[in-house]
Amino acid sequence: MTLQLDAYMHEKKAWIDSQLPLFLQETSIPGKLKESMLYSLMAGGKRIRPILLFAALNTLGESEDKGLSTAIALEMVHTYSLIHDDLPAMDNDDLRRGKPTNHKMFGEATAILAGDGLLTFAFQIIASDPALDGDIKSRLVALLASAAGPEGMVGGQEDDLEAEEKVLTLEQLMSVHRRKTGRLVGFPLEAAAVIARATEQQTHSLTGYADHLGLAFQIGDDILDIIGNEEELGKPVGSDLNNHKNTYVSLLELEGAKKKMADHVDRAVVFLRKSGFENSLLAQIAAFILNRTF
Amino acid sequence: MTLQLDAYMHEKKAWIDSQLPLFLQETSIPGKLKESMLYSLMAGGKRIRPILLFAALNTLGESEDKGLSTAIALEMVHTYSLIHDDLPAMDNDDLRRGKPTNHKMFGEATAILAGDGLLTFAFQIIASDPALDGDIKSRLVALLASAAGPEGMVGGQEDDLEAEEKVLTLEQLMSVHRRKTGRLVGFPLEAAAVIARATEQQTHSLTGYADHLGLAFQIGDDILDIIGNEEELGKPVGSDLNNHKNTYVSLLELEGAKKKMADHVDRAVVFLRKSGFENSLLAQIAAFILNRTF
Repeated sequence: MTLQLDAYMHEKKAWIDSQLPLFLQETSIPGKLKESMLYSLMAGGKRIRPILLFAALNTLGESEDKGLSTAIALEMVHTYSLIHDDLPAMDNDDLRRGKPTNHKMFGEATAILAGDGLLTFAFQIIASDPALDGDIKSRLVALLASAAGPEGMVGGQEDDLEAEEKVLTLEQLMSVHRRKTGRLVGFPLEAAAVIARATEQQTHSLTGYADHLGLAFQIGDDILDIIGNEEELGKPVGSDLNNHKNTYVSLLELEGAKKKMADHVDRAVVFLRKSGFENSLLAQIAAFILNRTF
Repeated sequence: MTLQLDAYMHEKKAWIDSQLPLFLQETSIPGKLKESMLYSLMAGGKRIRPILLFAALNTLGESEDKGLSTAIALEMVHTYSLIHDDLPAMDNDDLRRGKPTNHKMFGEATAILAGDGLLTFAFQIIASDPALDGDIKSRLVALLASAAGPEGMVGGQEDDLEAEEKVLTLEQLMSVHRRKTGRLVGFPLEAAAVIARATEQQTHSLTGYADHLGLAFQIGDDILDIIGNEEELGKPVGSDLNNHKNTYVSLLELEGAKKKMADHVDRAVVFLRKSGFENSLLAQIAAFILNRTF
């Protein structure tokens, strides 16, 4: 079972890794800007969000090829958010996955433009995909913009800035995370439902699953910051603690956070069961999130 | 004739000014982020790009209402570009149209997020417009992303960064400007053609007009930097000269630049004539660009 998931994830990651540069190849993007965009796109991401999209299409019985442009766009939006998040005015990080951050390599001005460029190009890629109907493309653009924009991820980043000096309650922390990371983890499930023209019941299962999976994923990040392997993570462990960040571990202690994560994974699977998806790749991914080490 | 254009521009500017805040009203955007986005949106823009869109729809005999969401999105993209352009890592400007720049008012982190938020929200607004077909919406998104993205405006900003230490030829300067400002001045004409389902001939006329109008507009900016009225411009005159920027005036002298601008305006009108649009609002706007003082 898990062996099958390992192979699937490996294959889909390789697909994304090989396709990403092709989408920038035949373009007139200035040399240094293109280099900077590619540098961060190819800096070793796990491609979890695209894999979720493909696994959801697979679960719905739809061709994974139909999700390629959306998967590429999603990875571009995720990458832009990391580049801007690392900027001196934001988190001021010098390293990301063990490598110099974009602005350390290309300077701050080009890093800002590389983020802007990836975000904008993402919408161009979806909207120009000849394999999808105009109606589906405009729904995908609206969903991605809503998940990534000022009501979604960008709003969550602003929430996070404002929370820096405060101690949050569990409810407030969950609300920040739902926006900051949850919406973009949820998007591939919503997108698959649109592409595959899923029923209302199926869409409800997938979005419920996505909500709990996103929270479990974030709790896992907080736990790994404490007990993770520095080499696998590509950043020093304990950095959240040292920065006095609000995390699930600081609020619930390590054991409480682990219990909370397991609870969200259980609830994610309950949503899958409602549409008979309990033996799908998506259920295996939920189990993987619970046990991941990086 | 010009009196009629004055009234038209005044009316359309007032429409955009009143509609822009409504598009942010019923949203869950965090308070400070929304305030920051609105601050720059309402900081006194001339709304030239939306006016071009409405005038082109009018010329094509299409309802201007159908262009509202695109006009709002376009003004959001234009505003995002100004916010990011003013950042310390980019042009490091403290004033814009006589008011403190966004990062001076809200801090650098929120200014970066306000720009990101406006750019993303722009695509959401077009893609969710219930008055347009899915096919038209996805074409508008693709066109706007192409004009604003790494092959368009963002690419032009990177070109501009790289040109800072060099003296450009006239051809190189035109190529930078075509991307940096020209594509986003051209977009409303392309968009009107899509919304109104214009013929191929009409689309050719509008995009040819747009190309020359965009160049004339940029030359006008360079001229106004030398001879403009500081109060009307909202920034000190002569700042390009003092920053040793590549401008049409530095390359062609003032008289040469004026002649070049008039030439582009003439050629813009030749394109209009090909579709019988020589008496349209668009022709009046070309004449207005030639004579503007701000």
